[in-house]
Amino acid sequence: MRFAKGHGTGNDFVILPDPGGELELSAALITSICDRRLGIGADGVLRVVRTLLAGVDAKGQAAEWFMDYRNADGSIAEMCGNGVRVFARYLIEQGLARGPELAIATRAGTRTVTAEADGQFTVDMGAAEVLGEGAVQAGDVQLPGLAISVGNPHLACVTDQPVGAVDLARPRVLRPAELAGGANIEVLRVIGQREVEMRVHERGSGQTLSCGTGAVATAVAAAAAAGEWPDGPGVPWTVLVPGGKLAVTPSATASLLTGPAEIVATGELSASWLAGLTPVGLSTV
Amino acid sequence: MRFAKGHGTGNDFVILPDPGGELELSAALITSICDRRLGIGADGVLRVVRTLLAGVDAKGQAAEWFMDYRNADGSIAEMCGNGVRVFARYLIEQGLARGPELAIATRAGTRTVTAEADGQFTVDMGAAEVLGEGAVQAGDVQLPGLAISVGNPHLACVTDQPVGAVDLARPRVLRPAELAGGANIEVLRVIGQREVEMRVHERGSGQTLSCGTGAVATAVAAAAAAGEWPDGPGVPWTVLVPGGKLAVTPSATASLLTGPAEIVATGELSASWLAGLTPVGLSTV
Repeated sequence: MRFAKGHGTGNDFVILPDPGGELELSAALITSICDRRLGIGADGVLRVVRTLLAGVDAKGQAAEWFMDYRNADGSIAEMCGNGVRVFARYLIEQGLARGPELAIATRAGTRTVTAEADGQFTVDMGAAEVLGEGAVQAGDVQLPGLAISVGNPHLACVTDQPVGAVDLARPRVLRPAELAGGANIEVLRVIGQREVEMRVHERGSGQTLSCGTGAVATAVAAAAAAGEWPDGPGVPWTVLVPGGKLAVTPSATASLLTGPAEIVATGELSASWLAGLTPVGLSTV
Repeated sequence: MRFAKGHGTGNDFVILPDPGGELELSAALITSICDRRLGIGADGVLRVVRTLLAGVDAKGQAAEWFMDYRNADGSIAEMCGNGVRVFARYLIEQGLARGPELAIATRAGTRTVTAEADGQFTVDMGAAEVLGEGAVQAGDVQLPGLAISVGNPHLACVTDQPVGAVDLARPRVLRPAELAGGANIEVLRVIGQREVEMRVHERGSGQTLSCGTGAVATAVAAAAAAGEWPDGPGVPWTVLVPGGKLAVTPSATASLLTGPAEIVATGELSASWLAGLTPVGLSTV
Protein backbone atom coordinates (compact mmCIF):
# COMPACT_ATOMS: atom_id res chain seq x y z
CA MET A 1 0.00 0.00 0.00
CA ARG A 2 1.51 3.28 -1.13
CA PHE A 3 1.53 6.33 1.12
CA ALA A 4 2.96 9.80 1.51
CA LYS A 5 3.49 11.86 4.63
CA GLY A 6 3.00 15.60 4.55
CA HIS A 7 2.19 18.58 6.73
CA GLY A 8 0.85 22.11 6.59
CA THR A 9 2.34 24.32 9.34
CA GLY A 10 2.80 21.26 11.54
CA ASN A 11 -0.65 19.72 11.06
CA ASP A 12 0.40 16.37 9.60
CA PHE A 13 -1.23 13.74 7.45
CA VAL A 14 -0.68 10.36 5.92
CA ILE A 15 -1.87 10.46 2.33
CA LEU A 16 -3.22 7.23 0.86
CA PRO A 17 -3.63 7.22 -2.94
CA ASP A 18 -6.73 5.22 -3.86
CA PRO A 19 -7.83 6.48 -7.28
CA GLY A 20 -10.18 3.56 -7.86
CA GLY A 21 -11.88 3.72 -4.46
CA GLU A 22 -10.80 0.18 -3.61
CA LEU A 23 -9.29 0.80 -0.20
CA GLU A 24 -11.13 -0.51 2.83
CA LEU A 25 -10.36 2.32 5.22
CA SER A 26 -11.35 0.83 8.57
CA ALA A 27 -10.98 2.75 11.81
CA ALA A 28 -8.48 0.09 12.90
CA LEU A 29 -6.29 0.72 9.86
CA ILE A 30 -6.46 4.49 10.33
CA THR A 31 -5.59 4.41 14.03
CA SER A 32 -2.73 2.01 13.30
CA ILE A 33 -1.31 4.21 10.55
CA CYS A 34 -1.72 7.37 12.66
CA ASP A 35 -0.15 5.83 15.76
CA ARG A 36 3.04 7.86 16.15
CA ARG A 37 5.18 4.99 17.47
CA LEU A 38 3.62 1.77 16.23
CA GLY A 39 2.68 3.20 12.82
CA ILE A 40 3.67 6.19 10.67
CA GLY A 41 2.06 8.85 12.83
CA ALA A 42 -0.21 11.71 11.82
CA ASP A 43 -3.09 13.92 12.90
CA GLY A 44 -5.21 12.28 10.22
CA VAL A 45 -5.42 10.41 6.94
CA LEU A 46 -6.17 11.94 3.53
CA ARG A 47 -7.46 9.32 1.12
CA VAL A 48 -7.08 10.45 -2.51
CA VAL A 49 -10.01 9.00 -4.43
CA ARG A 50 -11.83 9.88 -7.65
CA THR A 51 -15.02 11.71 -6.71
CA LEU A 52 -17.14 9.46 -8.94
CA LEU A 53 -15.85 6.38 -7.12
CA ALA A 54 -15.83 7.82 -3.61
CA GLY A 55 -19.38 6.99 -2.64
CA VAL A 56 -22.15 9.03 -1.09
CA ASP A 57 -20.01 11.59 0.78
CA ALA A 58 -18.76 13.03 -2.50
CA LYS A 59 -22.06 12.88 -4.34
CA GLY A 60 -22.75 15.40 -7.04
CA GLN A 61 -19.50 17.35 -6.76
CA ALA A 62 -17.88 18.23 -10.06
CA ALA A 63 -14.25 18.09 -8.86
CA GLU A 64 -12.24 15.11 -10.12
CA TRP A 65 -10.69 14.26 -6.72
CA PHE A 66 -12.34 13.83 -3.34
CA MET A 67 -10.45 14.45 -0.10
CA ASP A 68 -11.61 11.67 2.21
CA TYR A 69 -10.30 13.11 5.48
CA ARG A 70 -10.32 11.03 8.66
CA ASN A 71 -9.12 12.02 12.09
CA ALA A 72 -6.44 9.93 13.79
CA ASP A 73 -9.12 8.13 15.80
CA GLY A 74 -10.81 6.99 12.60
CA SER A 75 -13.71 9.42 12.81
CA ILE A 76 -14.87 11.32 9.73
CA ALA A 77 -13.96 14.99 9.31
CA GLU A 78 -15.55 17.43 6.92
CA MET A 79 -12.72 19.72 5.91
CA CYS A 80 -9.27 20.80 7.01
CA GLY A 81 -7.65 24.01 5.82
CA ASN A 82 -4.14 22.64 6.35
CA GLY A 83 -4.95 19.20 4.95
CA VAL A 84 -6.50 20.45 1.73
CA ARG A 85 -3.32 22.36 0.85
CA VAL A 86 -1.23 19.22 1.36
CA PHE A 87 -3.79 17.29 -0.67
CA ALA A 88 -3.50 19.80 -3.52
CA ARG A 89 0.28 19.68 -3.52
CA TYR A 90 0.20 15.89 -3.61
CA LEU A 91 -2.17 15.88 -6.61
CA ILE A 92 0.06 18.27 -8.54
CA GLU A 93 3.35 16.54 -7.62
CA GLN A 94 1.96 13.16 -8.60
CA GLY A 95 0.61 14.45 -11.90
CA LEU A 96 -2.96 13.70 -10.86
CA ALA A 97 -4.09 17.30 -11.38
CA ARG A 98 -2.77 20.44 -12.98
CA GLY A 99 -2.49 23.77 -11.21
CA PRO A 100 -2.41 26.54 -10.53
CA GLU A 101 -6.13 26.38 -9.72
CA LEU A 102 -7.86 23.16 -8.82
CA ALA A 103 -11.18 22.15 -7.38
CA ILE A 104 -11.19 19.54 -4.61
CA ALA A 105 -14.32 17.79 -3.43
CA THR A 106 -14.68 17.53 0.38
CA ARG A 107 -17.49 16.60 2.74
CA ALA A 108 -18.03 20.34 3.24
CA GLY A 109 -18.45 20.82 -0.53
CA THR A 110 -16.05 21.67 -3.33
CA ARG A 111 -13.13 23.91 -2.38
CA THR A 112 -10.89 25.80 -4.74
CA VAL A 113 -7.15 25.62 -4.04
CA THR A 114 -4.62 27.76 -5.85
CA ALA A 115 -0.92 26.94 -6.14
CA GLU A 116 0.88 30.25 -5.69
CA ALA A 117 4.05 31.20 -7.55
CA ASP A 118 6.07 31.08 -4.31
CA GLY A 119 5.13 27.45 -3.62
CA GLN A 120 2.39 28.20 -1.12
CA PHE A 121 -1.25 27.25 -1.53
CA THR A 122 -4.38 29.34 -1.05
CA VAL A 123 -7.71 27.78 -0.15
CA ASP A 124 -11.19 29.25 -0.04
CA MET A 125 -12.31 28.59 3.53
CA GLY A 126 -15.93 29.66 3.02
CA ALA A 127 -18.00 32.01 5.17
CA ALA A 128 -17.00 33.39 8.57
CA GLU A 129 -19.48 34.89 11.01
CA VAL A 130 -19.08 36.83 14.25
CA LEU A 131 -21.63 35.37 16.66
CA GLY A 132 -21.09 37.83 19.50
CA GLU A 133 -18.97 38.52 22.54
CA GLY A 134 -17.69 35.88 24.91
CA ALA A 135 -15.04 35.07 27.47
CA VAL A 136 -12.59 32.32 28.29
CA GLN A 137 -11.03 31.10 31.52
CA ALA A 138 -7.33 30.45 30.81
CA GLY A 139 -5.46 29.38 33.92
CA ASP A 140 -5.97 32.10 36.52
CA VAL A 141 -7.15 34.77 34.13
CA GLN A 142 -10.33 35.56 32.27
CA LEU A 143 -9.97 36.78 28.70
CA PRO A 144 -12.70 38.51 26.71
CA GLY A 145 -13.09 37.24 23.17
CA LEU A 146 -15.29 36.96 20.11
CA ALA A 147 -17.40 33.93 19.33
CA ILE A 148 -16.85 33.18 15.65
CA SER A 149 -18.13 30.50 13.32
CA VAL A 150 -15.91 29.28 10.48
CA GLY A 151 -18.16 26.31 9.85
CA ASN A 152 -17.01 25.15 13.30
CA PRO A 153 -17.17 27.23 16.51
CA HIS A 154 -14.28 29.35 17.82
CA LEU A 155 -13.64 31.77 20.63
CA ALA A 156 -10.82 34.12 19.68
CA CYS A 157 -9.32 36.31 22.41
CA VAL A 158 -7.20 39.37 21.68
CA THR A 159 -4.56 39.90 24.36
CA ASP A 160 -1.72 42.36 24.76
CA GLN A 161 0.68 39.93 26.35
CA PRO A 162 2.84 37.41 24.45
CA VAL A 163 0.56 34.50 23.56
CA GLY A 164 3.16 32.06 24.91
CA ALA A 165 2.47 33.47 28.39
CA VAL A 166 -1.22 32.47 28.36
CA ASP A 167 -2.02 29.17 30.06
CA LEU A 168 -3.82 27.22 27.33
CA ALA A 169 -3.46 23.81 28.97
CA ARG A 170 -7.16 23.57 29.86
CA PRO A 171 -9.01 26.71 28.76
CA ARG A 172 -12.76 26.86 29.25
CA VAL A 173 -15.47 28.89 27.53
CA LEU A 174 -17.29 31.07 30.09
CA ARG A 175 -19.59 32.86 27.61
CA PRO A 176 -21.59 32.59 25.40
CA ALA A 177 -23.55 29.68 26.85
CA GLU A 178 -24.02 28.14 23.39
CA LEU A 179 -20.28 27.47 23.18
CA ALA A 180 -19.83 26.24 26.74
CA GLY A 181 -19.99 22.67 25.43
CA GLY A 182 -16.76 23.21 23.55
CA ALA A 183 -15.10 25.39 20.96
CA ASN A 184 -11.67 25.91 19.52
CA ILE A 185 -10.01 28.62 21.59
CA GLU A 186 -7.46 31.05 20.16
CA VAL A 187 -5.39 33.70 21.89
CA LEU A 188 -3.85 36.33 19.66
CA ARG A 189 -1.71 39.41 19.93
CA VAL A 190 -1.10 42.03 17.29
CA ILE A 191 2.66 42.25 16.74
CA GLY A 192 2.84 44.35 13.59
CA GLN A 193 0.95 45.84 10.67
CA ARG A 194 -1.86 43.31 10.10
CA GLU A 195 0.36 40.72 11.74
CA VAL A 196 -0.62 38.61 14.75
CA GLU A 197 0.81 35.73 16.72
CA MET A 198 -1.66 33.13 17.90
CA ARG A 199 -1.92 29.90 19.85
CA VAL A 200 -4.80 27.51 19.68
CA HIS A 201 -6.45 24.88 21.84
CA GLU A 202 -8.54 22.62 19.64
CA ARG A 203 -11.68 21.02 20.94
CA GLY A 204 -10.91 17.33 21.34
CA SER A 205 -7.20 17.64 20.48
CA GLY A 206 -5.70 20.12 22.94
CA GLN A 207 -2.96 22.52 21.93
CA THR A 208 -1.80 22.01 18.36
CA LEU A 209 0.86 23.52 16.13
CA SER A 210 -1.70 24.94 13.74
CA CYS A 211 -5.40 25.09 12.91
CA GLY A 212 -6.67 26.38 9.57
CA THR A 213 -10.11 27.48 10.75
CA GLY A 214 -8.47 28.84 13.91
CA ALA A 215 -6.24 31.05 11.79
CA VAL A 216 -9.32 32.38 9.99
CA ALA A 217 -11.10 33.04 13.31
CA THR A 218 -7.95 34.76 14.54
CA ALA A 219 -7.86 37.08 11.52
CA VAL A 220 -11.57 37.85 11.91
CA ALA A 221 -11.05 38.79 15.58
CA ALA A 222 -8.00 40.90 14.72
CA ALA A 223 -9.88 42.64 11.91
CA ALA A 224 -12.84 43.29 14.21
CA ALA A 225 -10.51 44.80 16.84
CA ALA A 226 -9.04 47.02 14.10
CA GLY A 227 -12.51 48.18 12.97
CA GLU A 228 -12.11 46.26 9.68
CA TRP A 229 -14.94 43.78 10.08
CA PRO A 230 -17.04 42.88 8.18
CA ASP A 231 -15.87 45.48 5.68
CA GLY A 232 -12.11 45.43 5.40
CA PRO A 233 -9.67 46.39 2.68
CA GLY A 234 -9.33 42.77 1.51
CA VAL A 235 -5.70 42.77 2.57
CA PRO A 236 -4.34 39.59 4.19
CA TRP A 237 -3.37 39.29 7.84
CA THR A 238 -0.22 37.37 8.66
CA VAL A 239 -0.96 34.79 11.36
CA LEU A 240 2.06 33.25 13.09
CA VAL A 241 1.13 29.84 14.51
CA PRO A 242 3.48 27.58 16.50
CA GLY A 243 4.04 25.44 13.38
CA GLY A 244 4.74 28.24 10.93
CA LYS A 245 3.18 31.19 9.14
CA LEU A 246 -0.21 31.57 7.48
CA ALA A 247 -1.88 34.45 5.67
CA VAL A 248 -5.61 35.04 5.97
CA THR A 249 -7.89 37.44 4.17
CA PRO A 250 -10.95 37.37 6.40
CA SER A 251 -14.34 37.69 4.74
CA ALA A 252 -17.95 37.14 5.71
CA THR A 253 -18.50 35.17 2.51
CA ALA A 254 -15.22 33.52 1.49
CA SER A 255 -12.11 33.87 3.67
CA LEU A 256 -8.84 32.98 1.99
CA LEU A 257 -6.14 30.98 3.78
CA THR A 258 -2.63 30.87 2.33
CA GLY A 259 0.18 28.73 3.66
CA PRO A 260 2.85 26.15 2.96
CA ALA A 261 2.23 22.50 2.18
CA GLU A 262 5.07 20.02 2.51
CA ILE A 263 5.39 16.47 1.25
CA VAL A 264 7.96 14.94 3.61
CA ALA A 265 8.23 11.44 2.15
CA THR A 266 6.64 8.87 -0.11
CA GLY A 267 6.82 5.11 0.21
CA GLU A 268 5.13 1.80 0.81
CA LEU A 269 3.63 0.41 3.98
CA SER A 270 5.17 -2.99 4.72
CA ALA A 271 2.99 -5.96 3.90
CA SER A 272 4.24 -7.72 7.04
CA TRP A 273 3.21 -4.78 9.20
CA LEU A 274 -0.21 -4.48 7.54
CA ALA A 275 -0.76 -8.22 8.02
CA GLY A 276 0.01 -8.09 11.71
CA LEU A 277 -1.89 -4.97 12.71
CA THR A 278 -3.00 -4.87 16.27
CA PRO A 279 -4.42 -1.39 16.78
CA VAL A 280 -3.86 -0.46 20.36
CA GLY A 281 -3.91 3.33 20.18
CA LEU A 282 -1.02 3.64 22.58
CA SER A 283 0.64 6.69 21.22
CA THR A 284 -1.56 9.10 19.38
CA VAL A 285 0.06 12.22 20.84
CA MET B 1 17.39 9.76 0.49
CA ARG B 2 15.98 6.33 1.23
CA PHE B 3 14.56 5.49 4.67
CA ALA B 4 12.55 2.93 6.57
CA LYS B 5 10.47 3.33 9.69
CA GLY B 6 10.32 0.54 12.24
CA HIS B 7 9.70 -0.14 15.90
CA GLY B 8 10.38 -2.66 18.64
CA THR B 9 7.58 -2.75 21.23
CA GLY B 10 6.77 0.88 20.49
CA ASN B 11 10.30 2.25 20.59
CA ASP B 12 10.49 3.66 17.07
CA PHE B 13 13.26 4.49 14.65
CA VAL B 14 13.92 5.95 11.26
CA ILE B 15 16.46 3.73 9.49
CA LEU B 16 18.79 5.42 7.01
CA PRO B 17 20.71 3.05 4.72
CA ASP B 18 24.18 4.44 4.10
CA PRO B 19 26.36 1.45 3.15
CA GLY B 20 29.19 3.62 1.87
CA GLY B 21 29.28 5.98 4.83
CA GLU B 22 28.55 9.02 2.67
CA LEU B 23 25.70 10.51 4.65
CA GLU B 24 26.33 13.75 6.52
CA LEU B 25 24.21 13.05 9.59
CA SER B 26 23.97 16.49 11.18
CA ALA B 27 22.01 17.08 14.36
CA ALA B 28 19.73 19.38 12.33
CA LEU B 29 18.91 16.60 9.89
CA ILE B 30 18.26 14.11 12.69
CA THR B 31 15.99 16.42 14.67
CA SER B 32 14.09 17.29 11.48
CA ILE B 33 13.59 13.64 10.55
CA CYS B 34 12.58 12.71 14.11
CA ASP B 35 10.16 15.60 14.48
CA ARG B 36 6.81 13.84 14.74
CA ARG B 37 4.81 16.49 12.89
CA LEU B 38 7.23 18.35 10.65
CA GLY B 39 9.22 15.22 9.72
CA ILE B 40 8.74 11.46 9.86
CA GLY B 41 8.87 11.11 13.64
CA ALA B 42 10.87 8.67 15.74
CA ASP B 43 12.67 8.18 19.04
CA GLY B 44 15.92 7.99 17.12
CA VAL B 45 17.77 7.32 13.88
CA LEU B 46 19.59 4.10 12.98
CA ARG B 47 22.15 4.71 10.26
CA VAL B 48 23.11 1.46 8.49
CA VAL B 49 26.76 1.76 7.52
CA ARG B 50 29.57 -0.67 6.72
CA THR B 51 31.76 -0.93 9.82
CA LEU B 52 34.94 -0.35 7.81
CA LEU B 53 33.53 2.92 6.47
CA ALA B 54 31.85 4.11 9.67
CA GLY B 55 34.78 5.91 11.20
CA VAL B 56 36.30 5.86 14.64
CA ASP B 57 33.20 4.81 16.62
CA ALA B 58 33.19 1.41 14.93
CA LYS B 59 36.94 0.89 14.99
CA GLY B 60 38.24 -2.66 15.15
CA GLN B 61 34.89 -4.44 15.25
CA ALA B 62 34.64 -7.51 13.03
CA ALA B 63 30.91 -7.21 12.25
CA GLU B 64 30.10 -6.12 8.68
CA TRP B 65 27.47 -3.54 9.70
CA PHE B 66 27.64 -0.76 12.27
CA MET B 67 24.51 0.55 13.98
CA ASP B 68 25.07 4.31 14.17
CA TYR B 69 22.33 5.14 16.67
CA ARG B 70 21.36 8.76 17.38
CA ASN B 71 18.72 10.03 19.75
CA ALA B 72 15.94 12.26 18.42
CA ASP B 73 17.82 15.33 19.66
CA GLY B 74 20.85 14.39 17.55
CA SER B 75 22.98 13.17 20.44
CA ILE B 76 24.96 9.96 20.15
CA ALA B 77 23.74 6.79 21.86
CA GLU B 78 25.75 3.65 22.51
CA MET B 79 23.24 0.85 22.18
CA CYS B 80 19.52 0.23 22.19
CA GLY B 81 18.04 -3.21 22.83
CA ASN B 82 14.89 -2.39 20.86
CA GLY B 83 16.74 -0.62 18.07
CA VAL B 84 19.25 -3.38 17.43
CA ARG B 85 16.44 -5.89 16.78
CA VAL B 86 14.86 -3.54 14.24
CA PHE B 87 18.31 -3.00 12.73
CA ALA B 88 18.80 -6.78 12.39
CA ARG B 89 15.40 -7.27 10.76
CA TYR B 90 16.13 -4.49 8.31
CA LEU B 91 19.50 -6.04 7.34
CA ILE B 92 17.89 -9.43 6.71
CA GLU B 93 14.84 -8.07 4.84
CA GLN B 94 17.03 -5.95 2.59
CA GLY B 95 19.38 -8.85 1.86
CA LEU B 96 22.29 -7.04 3.51
CA ALA B 97 22.95 -9.89 5.96
CA ARG B 98 21.91 -13.46 6.41
CA GLY B 99 20.38 -14.87 9.59
CA PRO B 100 19.62 -16.48 11.77
CA GLU B 101 22.64 -15.25 13.71
CA LEU B 102 24.33 -11.99 12.92
CA ALA B 103 26.88 -9.76 14.55
CA ILE B 104 26.18 -6.05 14.65
CA ALA B 105 28.81 -3.47 15.57
CA THR B 106 27.63 -0.77 18.01
CA ARG B 107 29.31 1.91 20.08
CA ALA B 108 29.01 -0.48 23.03
CA GLY B 109 30.85 -3.21 21.10
CA THR B 110 29.69 -6.02 18.86
CA ARG B 111 26.32 -7.54 19.72
CA THR B 112 24.97 -10.86 18.50
CA VAL B 113 21.36 -10.85 17.32
CA THR B 114 19.48 -14.04 16.49
CA ALA B 115 16.40 -14.20 14.27
CA GLU B 116 14.06 -16.68 15.96
CA ALA B 117 11.80 -19.09 14.09
CA ASP B 118 8.69 -17.21 15.27
CA GLY B 119 9.85 -13.91 13.75
CA GLN B 120 11.18 -12.42 16.97
CA PHE B 121 14.76 -11.40 17.58
CA THR B 122 17.06 -12.15 20.51
CA VAL B 123 19.92 -9.87 21.45
CA ASP B 124 22.76 -10.33 23.90
CA MET B 125 22.44 -7.35 26.24
CA GLY B 126 25.71 -7.91 28.07
CA ALA B 127 26.32 -7.92 31.80
CA ALA B 128 23.81 -6.89 34.48
CA GLU B 129 24.81 -6.02 38.03
CA VAL B 130 22.83 -5.42 41.20
CA LEU B 131 24.39 -2.37 42.83
CA GLY B 132 22.32 -2.43 46.03
CA GLU B 133 19.09 -1.30 47.57
CA GLY B 134 17.41 1.99 46.87
CA ALA B 135 14.13 3.84 46.92
CA VAL B 136 12.03 6.03 44.64
CA GLN B 137 9.51 8.79 45.29
CA ALA B 138 6.58 8.21 42.90
CA GLY B 139 3.80 10.72 43.46
CA ASP B 140 2.78 10.49 47.10
CA VAL B 141 4.39 7.13 47.77
CA GLN B 142 7.88 5.86 48.38
CA LEU B 143 8.78 2.57 46.73
CA PRO B 144 11.77 0.43 47.70
CA GLY B 145 13.76 -0.87 44.75
CA LEU B 146 17.02 -2.29 43.50
CA ALA B 147 19.73 -0.23 41.89
CA ILE B 148 20.85 -2.15 38.82
CA SER B 149 23.38 -1.47 36.11
CA VAL B 150 22.74 -2.77 32.58
CA GLY B 151 25.50 -0.61 31.18
CA ASN B 152 23.25 2.31 32.16
CA PRO B 153 21.74 2.89 35.64
CA HIS B 154 18.28 1.69 36.69
CA LEU B 155 16.18 1.63 39.80
CA ALA B 156 13.63 -1.20 39.56
CA CYS B 157 10.83 -1.30 42.13
CA VAL B 158 8.72 -4.38 42.79
CA THR B 159 5.18 -3.48 43.78
CA ASP B 160 2.06 -5.51 44.48
CA GLN B 161 -0.34 -3.03 42.94
CA PRO B 162 -1.11 -2.74 39.21
CA VAL B 163 1.76 -0.79 37.69
CA GLY B 164 -0.72 1.49 35.91
CA ALA B 165 -1.74 2.80 39.34
CA VAL B 166 1.74 4.12 40.16
CA ASP B 167 2.31 7.81 39.46
CA LEU B 168 5.35 7.79 37.16
CA ALA B 169 4.91 11.33 35.86
CA ARG B 170 7.92 12.69 37.78
CA PRO B 171 9.53 9.93 39.84
CA ARG B 172 12.69 10.74 41.77
CA VAL B 173 15.49 8.55 43.09
CA LEU B 174 15.74 8.89 46.89
CA ARG B 175 18.51 6.33 47.38
CA PRO B 176 21.25 5.41 46.60
CA ALA B 177 22.91 8.81 46.45
CA GLU B 178 24.98 7.78 43.42
CA LEU B 179 21.79 7.54 41.32
CA ALA B 180 20.14 10.70 42.64
CA GLY B 181 21.39 12.51 39.53
CA GLY B 182 19.18 10.37 37.37
CA ALA B 183 18.38 6.80 36.46
CA ASN B 184 15.79 4.93 34.49
CA ILE B 185 13.03 3.99 36.91
CA GLU B 186 10.92 0.85 36.52
CA VAL B 187 7.94 -0.33 38.51
CA LEU B 188 7.02 -3.97 38.15
CA ARG B 189 4.49 -6.44 39.47
CA VAL B 190 4.60 -10.22 39.22
CA ILE B 191 1.38 -11.32 37.48
CA GLY B 192 2.16 -14.98 36.74
CA GLN B 193 4.83 -17.67 36.61
CA ARG B 194 7.98 -15.72 35.73
CA GLU B 195 5.73 -13.07 34.21
CA VAL B 196 5.75 -9.39 35.17
CA GLU B 197 4.11 -6.20 33.99
CA MET B 198 6.28 -3.09 34.07
CA ARG B 199 6.25 0.61 33.32
CA VAL B 200 9.29 2.75 32.83
CA HIS B 201 10.33 6.37 33.20
CA GLU B 202 13.45 6.95 31.16
CA ARG B 203 16.01 9.48 32.22
CA GLY B 204 15.73 12.37 29.81
CA SER B 205 12.72 10.98 27.92
CA GLY B 206 9.97 10.50 30.49
CA GLN B 207 7.52 7.63 30.30
CA THR B 208 8.01 5.48 27.20
CA LEU B 209 6.28 2.48 25.69
CA SER B 210 9.33 0.29 26.11
CA CYS B 211 12.96 0.23 27.16
CA GLY B 212 15.26 -2.69 26.39
CA THR B 213 17.70 -2.19 29.24
CA GLY B 214 14.72 -1.41 31.50
CA ALA B 215 13.22 -4.80 30.66
CA VAL B 216 16.50 -6.44 31.61
CA ALA B 217 16.66 -4.51 34.90
CA THR B 218 13.05 -5.50 35.53
CA ALA B 219 13.81 -9.19 35.04
CA VAL B 220 16.86 -8.91 37.30
CA ALA B 221 14.75 -7.31 40.06
CA ALA B 222 12.02 -9.93 39.64
CA ALA B 223 14.56 -12.74 39.71
CA ALA B 224 16.18 -11.25 42.83
CA ALA B 225 12.78 -11.05 44.55
CA ALA B 226 12.22 -14.71 43.64
CA GLY B 227 15.60 -15.73 45.06
CA GLU B 228 16.90 -16.50 41.57
CA TRP B 229 19.69 -13.94 41.35
CA PRO B 230 22.48 -14.18 40.39
CA ASP B 231 22.04 -17.93 40.02
CA GLY B 232 18.77 -18.66 38.27
CA PRO B 233 17.53 -21.56 36.17
CA GLY B 234 18.28 -19.70 32.92
CA VAL B 235 14.58 -19.57 32.11
CA PRO B 236 13.23 -16.38 30.54
CA TRP B 237 10.92 -13.93 32.28
CA THR B 238 8.05 -12.49 30.29
CA VAL B 239 8.04 -8.70 30.64
CA LEU B 240 4.87 -6.91 29.54
CA VAL B 241 5.67 -3.32 28.61
CA PRO B 242 3.11 -0.71 27.49
CA GLY B 243 4.22 -1.24 23.87
CA GLY B 244 4.13 -5.04 23.82
CA LYS B 245 5.80 -8.13 25.21
CA LEU B 246 9.46 -8.95 25.76
CA ALA B 247 11.24 -12.00 27.14
CA VAL B 248 14.38 -11.63 29.25
CA THR B 249 16.77 -14.22 30.56
CA PRO B 250 18.62 -12.22 33.20
CA SER B 251 22.27 -12.99 33.71
CA ALA B 252 25.22 -11.39 35.47
CA THR B 253 27.34 -11.91 32.37
CA ALA B 254 25.08 -11.86 29.30
CA SER B 255 21.35 -11.21 29.65
CA LEU B 256 19.23 -12.16 26.66
CA LEU B 257 16.40 -9.95 25.41
CA THR B 258 13.85 -11.38 22.97
CA GLY B 259 11.12 -9.37 21.31
CA PRO B 260 9.43 -8.33 18.09
CA ALA B 261 10.88 -6.01 15.48
CA GLU B 262 8.60 -4.39 12.93
CA ILE B 263 9.40 -2.59 9.70
CA VAL B 264 6.37 -0.33 9.20
CA ALA B 265 7.29 1.29 5.90
CA THR B 266 10.04 2.00 3.43
CA GLY B 267 10.37 4.98 1.14
CA GLU B 268 12.16 8.11 0.08
CA LEU B 269 12.44 11.44 1.83
CA SER B 270 11.29 14.21 -0.50
CA ALA B 271 14.05 16.26 -2.06
CA SER B 272 11.92 19.40 -1.66
CA TRP B 273 11.50 18.75 2.05
CA LEU B 274 15.21 18.02 2.54
CA ALA B 275 16.10 21.20 0.68
CA GLY B 276 13.87 23.37 2.83
CA LEU B 277 14.68 21.98 6.26
CA THR B 278 14.18 24.38 9.09
CA PRO B 279 14.75 22.36 12.24
CA VAL B 280 12.61 23.87 14.93
CA GLY B 281 12.15 20.95 17.29
CA LEU B 282 8.51 21.80 17.86
CA SER B 283 7.07 18.34 18.26
CA THR B 284 9.42 15.68 19.49
CA VAL B 285 6.87 14.04 21.79
